[in-house]
Amino acid sequence: MSHNSFGRLFRFTSWGESHGAGVGCVVDGAPPRLSLSEADVQHWLDKRRPGQSRFVSPRRESDRVKILSGLMEEGGETFTTGAPISMLIENEDARSEDYDALRDVFRPGHSDYAYQRKYGIRDHRGGGRSSARETAVRVAAGAVARKIVPEIRIRSAVLQLGEKRASRERWDWEEAERNLLRCPDVESVKDWEAYLDGLREAGSSCGAVIEIEVSGVPVGLGAPIYGKLDADLAAALMSVNAVKGVEIGEGFGSAALRGEENADEMRMKKGKGGEVVFLSNHSGGVMGGISTGQDLVLRFVVKPTSSIRVVGRTVTSGGEDAEVSVRGRHDPCVGIRAGVVGEAMVACVLADHFLRHRGQIG
Amino acid sequence: MSHNSFGRLFRFTSWGESHGAGVGCVVDGAPPRLSLSEADVQHWLDKRRPGQSRFVSPRRESDRVKILSGLMEEGGETFTTGAPISMLIENEDARSEDYDALRDVFRPGHSDYAYQRKYGIRDHRGGGRSSARETAVRVAAGAVARKIVPEIRIRSAVLQLGEKRASRERWDWEEAERNLLRCPDVESVKDWEAYLDGLREAGSSCGAVIEIEVSGVPVGLGAPIYGKLDADLAAALMSVNAVKGVEIGEGFGSAALRGEENADEMRMKKGKGGEVVFLSNHSGGVMGGISTGQDLVLRFVVKPTSSIRVVGRTVTSGGEDAEVSVRGRHDPCVGIRAGVVGEAMVACVLADHFLRHRGQIG
Amino acid sequence: MSHNSFGRLFRFTSWGESHGAGVGCVVDGAPPRLSLSEADVQHWLDKRRPGQSRFVSPRRESDRVKILSGLMEEGGETFTTGAPISMLIENEDARSEDYDALRDVFRPGHSDYAYQRKYGIRDHRGGGRSSARETAVRVAAGAVARKIVPEIRIRSAVLQLGEKRASRERWDWEEAERNLLRCPDVESVKDWEAYLDGLREAGSSCGAVIEIEVSGVPVGLGAPIYGKLDADLAAALMSVNAVKGVEIGEGFGSAALRGEENADEMRMKKGKGGEVVFLSNHSGGVMGGISTGQDLVLRFVVKPTSSIRVVGRTVTSGGEDAEVSVRGRHDPCVGIRAGVVGEAMVACVLADHFLRHRGQIG
Amino acid sequence: MSHNSFGRLFRFTSWGESHGAGVGCVVDGAPPRLSLSEADVQHWLDKRRPGQSRFVSPRRESDRVKILSGLMEEGGETFTTGAPISMLIENEDARSEDYDALRDVFRPGHSDYAYQRKYGIRDHRGGGRSSARETAVRVAAGAVARKIVPEIRIRSAVLQLGEKRASRERWDWEEAERNLLRCPDVESVKDWEAYLDGLREAGSSCGAVIEIEVSGVPVGLGAPIYGKLDADLAAALMSVNAVKGVEIGEGFGSAALRGEENADEMRMKKGKGGEVVFLSNHSGGVMGGISTGQDLVLRFVVKPTSSIRVVGRTVTSGGEDAEVSVRGRHDPCVGIRAGVVGEAMVACVLADHFLRHRGQIG
Repeated sequence: MSHNSFGRLFRFTSWGESHGAGVGCVVDGAPPRLSLSEADVQHWLDKRRPGQSRFVSPRRESDRVKILSGLMEEGGETFTTGAPISMLIENEDARSEDYDALRDVFRPGHSDYAYQRKYGIRDHRGGGRSSARETAVRVAAGAVARKIVPEIRIRSAVLQLGEKRASRERWDWEEAERNLLRCPDVESVKDWEAYLDGLREAGSSCGAVIEIEVSGVPVGLGAPIYGKLDADLAAALMSVNAVKGVEIGEGFGSAALRGEENADEMRMKKGKGGEVVFLSNHSGGVMGGISTGQDLVLRFVVKPTSSIRVVGRTVTSGGEDAEVSVRGRHDPCVGIRAGVVGEAMVACVLADHFLRHRGQIG
Repeated sequence: MSHNSFGRLFRFTSWGESHGAGVGCVVDGAPPRLSLSEADVQHWLDKRRPGQSRFVSPRRESDRVKILSGLMEEGGETFTTGAPISMLIENEDARSEDYDALRDVFRPGHSDYAYQRKYGIRDHRGGGRSSARETAVRVAAGAVARKIVPEIRIRSAVLQLGEKRASRERWDWEEAERNLLRCPDVESVKDWEAYLDGLREAGSSCGAVIEIEVSGVPVGLGAPIYGKLDADLAAALMSVNAVKGVEIGEGFGSAALRGEENADEMRMKKGKGGEVVFLSNHSGGVMGGISTGQDLVLRFVVKPTSSIRVVGRTVTSGGEDAEVSVRGRHDPCVGIRAGVVGEAMVACVLADHFLRHRGQIG
Repeated sequence: MSHNSFGRLFRFTSWGESHGAGVGCVVDGAPPRLSLSEADVQHWLDKRRPGQSRFVSPRRESDRVKILSGLMEEGGETFTTGAPISMLIENEDARSEDYDALRDVFRPGHSDYAYQRKYGIRDHRGGGRSSARETAVRVAAGAVARKIVPEIRIRSAVLQLGEKRASRERWDWEEAERNLLRCPDVESVKDWEAYLDGLREAGSSCGAVIEIEVSGVPVGLGAPIYGKLDADLAAALMSVNAVKGVEIGEGFGSAALRGEENADEMRMKKGKGGEVVFLSNHSGGVMGGISTGQDLVLRFVVKPTSSIRVVGRTVTSGGEDAEVSVRGRHDPCVGIRAGVVGEAMVACVLADHFLRHRGQIG
Repeated sequence: MSHNSFGRLFRFTSWGESHGAGVGCVVDGAPPRLSLSEADVQHWLDKRRPGQSRFVSPRRESDRVKILSGLMEEGGETFTTGAPISMLIENEDARSEDYDALRDVFRPGHSDYAYQRKYGIRDHRGGGRSSARETAVRVAAGAVARKIVPEIRIRSAVLQLGEKRASRERWDWEEAERNLLRCPDVESVKDWEAYLDGLREAGSSCGAVIEIEVSGVPVGLGAPIYGKLDADLAAALMSVNAVKGVEIGEGFGSAALRGEENADEMRMKKGKGGEVVFLSNHSGGVMGGISTGQDLVLRFVVKPTSSIRVVGRTVTSGGEDAEVSVRGRHDPCVGIRAGVVGEAMVACVLADHFLRHRGQIG
């Protein structure tokens, strides 16, 4: 069952709420003798951390990870032993009193109402289990996953921020690493910043589309029929908070193409023995649920942040109409920090399929 | 593991190739005492069957399902017993010789190359395991799933066929049941037919976007965090042949919305005790991975059929450049028959989550 | 979920009842390019088949297996393709009318009552899903499993038949293959036959203890903590019809030993590089849930056949007291045919752990 | 996969080593609104705790559990929310230096050698992951499980301690709670104590057989065929450290019985409507893998403690012959503390099957 576990051979189980002791996960199935330290995990957590600019939540969390198990020291370095790796990230800057006003009010666009109806009980503080704080453990698990497939490089950028779309002509992956908005188009950064400042000052928010590109993927990952690589990637990304859609390769654009336009034709590489070259990558690196060796190209969309100051109509748990304005410390666009989370989920899926493939095929 | 099994408590395991003895599945976990007969399953298989118009594959398969286990007769009616239900659909019109020319050639846009590289062996006849014929068993399993959640109604229509898009204003779900293209817009049918005839005569193909609407879903289905209802639906649909993207509610369109535009505000229903009314359904019926009781609204895209007469460049398994023109009996747009497959997968996910929810919550 | 699926990476899903169309299974996760034919599977099924002597059920089943999927022919030989292998064994000699008298009566010692109470519906013909006929599919799946770990040899013998126990001094594995009772002690065979004839003529039955020995097991199989090799073996054997106990190595006898008596001491092999030799095998080949490279030694007990002519007190589904004498065609001791079933389950567990180990460790 | 996760719908994932930060687990799938506190869990942990008498390890661990997630306070009481429950038990009295001498020596009867060969790396301190300290988390998870099936009562006693066996005639479950050896036979206690003192002083150890009796089990738990209740119980108990055998009901004794002796005959209860009474319980409460409503009766055996002062022959990781005498703080018989662990595993299996049954049947 996968209520709170993700993956098969490489598998993590997560726990924790926004306003309890912390969040954490147990990573199971990692191969032994991988060099792994808290610093390795911290590197990725720091990219997701809030409080780093005016464009993300000002909540001050150091997000320090502690690794509680599964490592053994040898010659001054720590290695995985094949045993489960328990990781803990304590909550530090949780202001539960911020949420007292929301104890009995369902925020529109939030899961408050659904949780209350499903479970009959609900942790209203910061969204409890449905908080985006949970995504920190995905990033931590992803850091371990990356160790399993070190030759794979995963990167992401914001393709679209609200109504603004990055230019494909000026696309620069390194630029996306440099600016605060993870925009790959240097000429758009200022415009995007002004746009987001406007939303933020209005107490509003916007959505975003994030693109992920993965290179170095070996041919053959994916377990047809119901463990197809793209199906597992879709579930992985769709399970991230606020995500409302996922596509691969041409994605929704492929509807309007003709068969011959969409086909990824092949040729033998000149002067080389046995290497096949694809002449295009409309498929996004997966055919029949199996990686082809081309780059994976994925996109996912996050909806606009639901926690906004703009007043909205709602109801209370007591069954009264009400108005609500959410005054917590929220990201005006969760898309900016979503890239690193999406990358981590992709890493987990790839590590899992790498082990699964090795198990079946050797 | 889910190589060829789908679902958790309601679970089916599928097997079979396009050109072997047949395809089939074993449905496990169905509750006992559901009224179920071969005719109940056949009803849905008939909607997916090829050979029914010039717009779909002319392969003549009666697709008769046989139920081999799991039923018991009582008073002239057959019921599930809680034991696994094995279903068999024999292949009838498989012309393996059609595929002799493809024994050593990788069709562009197909999984031929990926299968060969992953497994080192490949059934070239009709795509083998990767054949869309496998979707028949999804439909069969879905027929059982529908019995578990009889109050849920699932329907689908083609929102976009190649470059053509149905009008939202003229949208008519019943029209989509009537015409051969499953177009919900009666005024567009003739235009779509001419468009598809043109592609067919040119030996080409196009993609499509299918929309699914589900009503009668109870509040509370979905198992956060990694068993979110929308994540499982995304995987279910993405696992169908040719699907390259999935979205829910506003989907990719939500990127450009502001928080207040996308929020589904709530009000108490007038004159009624305790009932909450949503004023919009941007979420598509799922928040925080849990159904809200609103209609589920999902869309998925299928790429243009890869098996086309138009000549394409490719390579052989021997490492030679080659040209290929596929002359089998293929659908010019798989989107027309994909709706019933998508519906079946949605039914399976909902039945599974219904049982999972009942297990945990009672 | 494992209602009717067994294993993780090597996994089979079974279906079928004693008196329906047949029984079958789908084997998923087998590596590609294993040489496999129906004859390979039939070899093992023939060892389990009823009707072969007066000591087993006279039901005449040819138990012919058909492989419906997952194979591809190359050069006159058939190989696995990595796709699911569907196997079918049709019922031939099912006399459902034999069971009319049992439609409303719960046989003592049988699962009739438990099935009726759990599911509210029950296939009374031959025990339906709970029939030992289901064990044929275990043997079929085991035949595939053996192909995955061809260097492993699994054999079994009847250690105890009713009140009779085989001598350890005269133990001969080959003798157990020769006689009808699978008795490893040639001097006891006649005595056992007379004993069993007596029980059979009295319309009674007895239980048995079967010993399994497995050689050629590599070091390192097993996935602690909850996937320990011995835990999975215990579940595998305990899931076989009529099994009431499982032990490994010294088993229940280890309670009375002292630590130094039970310890398997080690020494380096003389004149060889790096090889460890155990001086005893009290552990039965597993320590900490991981195989040590020594022989696996397992024992399991089957209870006396519950279907006997001797009259027993019971109740009807209508709530009346009743007497019952079962006149079907039953084995006087299921232990004689249980060995090959137990061997098959052990093969499945080992194949699964071989793949799981390869997945995690490489 | 179940490397370190146990159960399906009720599922716990464990982590931790003997000499690291601690041990812990994440319990997933517990229903919401169960009253649960740290004290509820501590109650059971205290029964397993070392350092309580001369007959168990003198290691001084307070074994204080902290619950880090999954609870919500309401009206001064804490309840489960349906979210994962993370529990942590910190290591306090770990003397890693005790183990320096064992860094390169494989203890006979231990998993040291198997771990080293499987993973190529090994935490030698206290057995690392294979330490019996891991059983504390089983007890913690079991405490949550008991809350799910509060009407079920589970108790255990030591049936056999080394060469000593408790009298069935004098069996008294309450006595087993009172004395230090969990002996159900008050007249044997002194004799057992003297026997164990003798072993302890000799630096030796012995094994034990523990009997578990479970009352209040509803009819119908168990998921045939591969999720049979007794198969899952067997795996659960066999996965506990040092366990080498499991049996249910008559167990290995059933081999020597005749069918009519072993049959549990039935009668309608006099003067009552519709209630069935079994006239015996040879089956141990499970038929066909499904609970019958009778008491569950299980027995499991633990081997003698491998960590003994008596000198044994072994080898080093460097490939040298060696002698070893283990001087840590070990139980002379782990059977005394194993009962509470076994009970916890049984509770977990029953809670899981209760939820699984409710999922499928309603």
